[in-house]
Amino acid sequence: MTLDDGALDVLFRTARTRNGWTDTPVADETLHALYDILKFGPTSANCSPARFVFIRTREAKEKLKPALNPGNVDKTMAAPVTVIVAYDPIFYEHLPKLFPHADARAWFAGNPDLADETAFRNGTLQGAYLIIAARGLGLDCGPMSGFDKAKVDQSFLAEQGWKSNFLVNLGHGTDANLFPRSPRLDFDEACVLA
Amino acid sequence: MTLDDGALDVLFRTARTRNGWTDTPVADETLHALYDILKFGPTSANCSPARFVFIRTREAKEKLKPALNPGNVDKTMAAPVTVIVAYDPIFYEHLPKLFPHADARAWFAGNPDLADETAFRNGTLQGAYLIIAARGLGLDCGPMSGFDKAKVDQSFLAEQGWKSNFLVNLGHGTDANLFPRSPRLDFDEACVLA
Repeated sequence: MTLDDGALDVLFRTARTRNGWTDTPVADETLHALYDILKFGPTSANCSPARFVFIRTREAKEKLKPALNPGNVDKTMAAPVTVIVAYDPIFYEHLPKLFPHADARAWFAGNPDLADETAFRNGTLQGAYLIIAARGLGLDCGPMSGFDKAKVDQSFLAEQGWKSNFLVNLGHGTDANLFPRSPRLDFDEACVLA
Repeated sequence: MTLDDGALDVLFRTARTRNGWTDTPVADETLHALYDILKFGPTSANCSPARFVFIRTREAKEKLKPALNPGNVDKTMAAPVTVIVAYDPIFYEHLPKLFPHADARAWFAGNPDLADETAFRNGTLQGAYLIIAARGLGLDCGPMSGFDKAKVDQSFLAEQGWKSNFLVNLGHGTDANLFPRSPRLDFDEACVLA
């Protein structure tokens, strides 16, 4: 089965990173539905290192505000939800449940460099799955790297020991402050046939 | 617009990482179509650092073989296409074209740590977009981290100076050596509502 053009447009071709947001809220049920889709995206040995903090109260938004780069403050405060896409550096403690086929925990427990790289790579893959799954549910996204990771980690992730990776505003976008669609690299600039 | 359940199944819920492959080839036109979808996925400042080497000849497959972990050899040699998902460490040289709104090149040119992290994070996002877009085109995927990056870089990427990130087998999958679907973390294990 292949997706029709309308679906590929919604996910990729006409979807846009949004900087303006309507007041329409995003229900907690939608966030659960979102996780229940993105969790099925593939990760190495099913390691699933990503963790997600869904910031949707005014109080939590105010706690996030001092960590944001100035250019990201207004749009983030206006978005119904801001997701901290994070990862668990000791994700491998869950591998006996997540990958029962082998002792995958042992591959990472004594190898911090491999564990860090695996957490960052696969946690990032899962962040992309979140973006695409959100679009599939009719939401718009505004992913951002411009924030103080140490501040976010201290304010939101210290208890669990998770590490922040990037942020994604979620909601229903408007055309406010929308960039014109920027060019992409041509196939021959980014790809090689071998 | 939201995607219907069938589309979400194809992309996430019933899609599986494949270890067996039919002989049905993947046309070069399909690889072009794949890139023309995935390239629209969002990256930070549209930096688009991912590069893709599509290995589909017997000669190139034999060149890849010595770099593969033993458990990944047979399935990779059988797959119609294996993609090296790579990134360009000096991706920022393209930013005057890709992000004409600001002098984004200057953010990275003198800051190798930020450039490396940005290339890895955003190149990985684009690898996820490749996986999802391929599924949307009716292809199956088999992503892999088990290979010798230095060997792949030397054999395939030295001329361009690109760095390998992970591999993805592409084609039409069979149920051969298919793992049972492994469990995922529950919402409350991976998510926090704030």
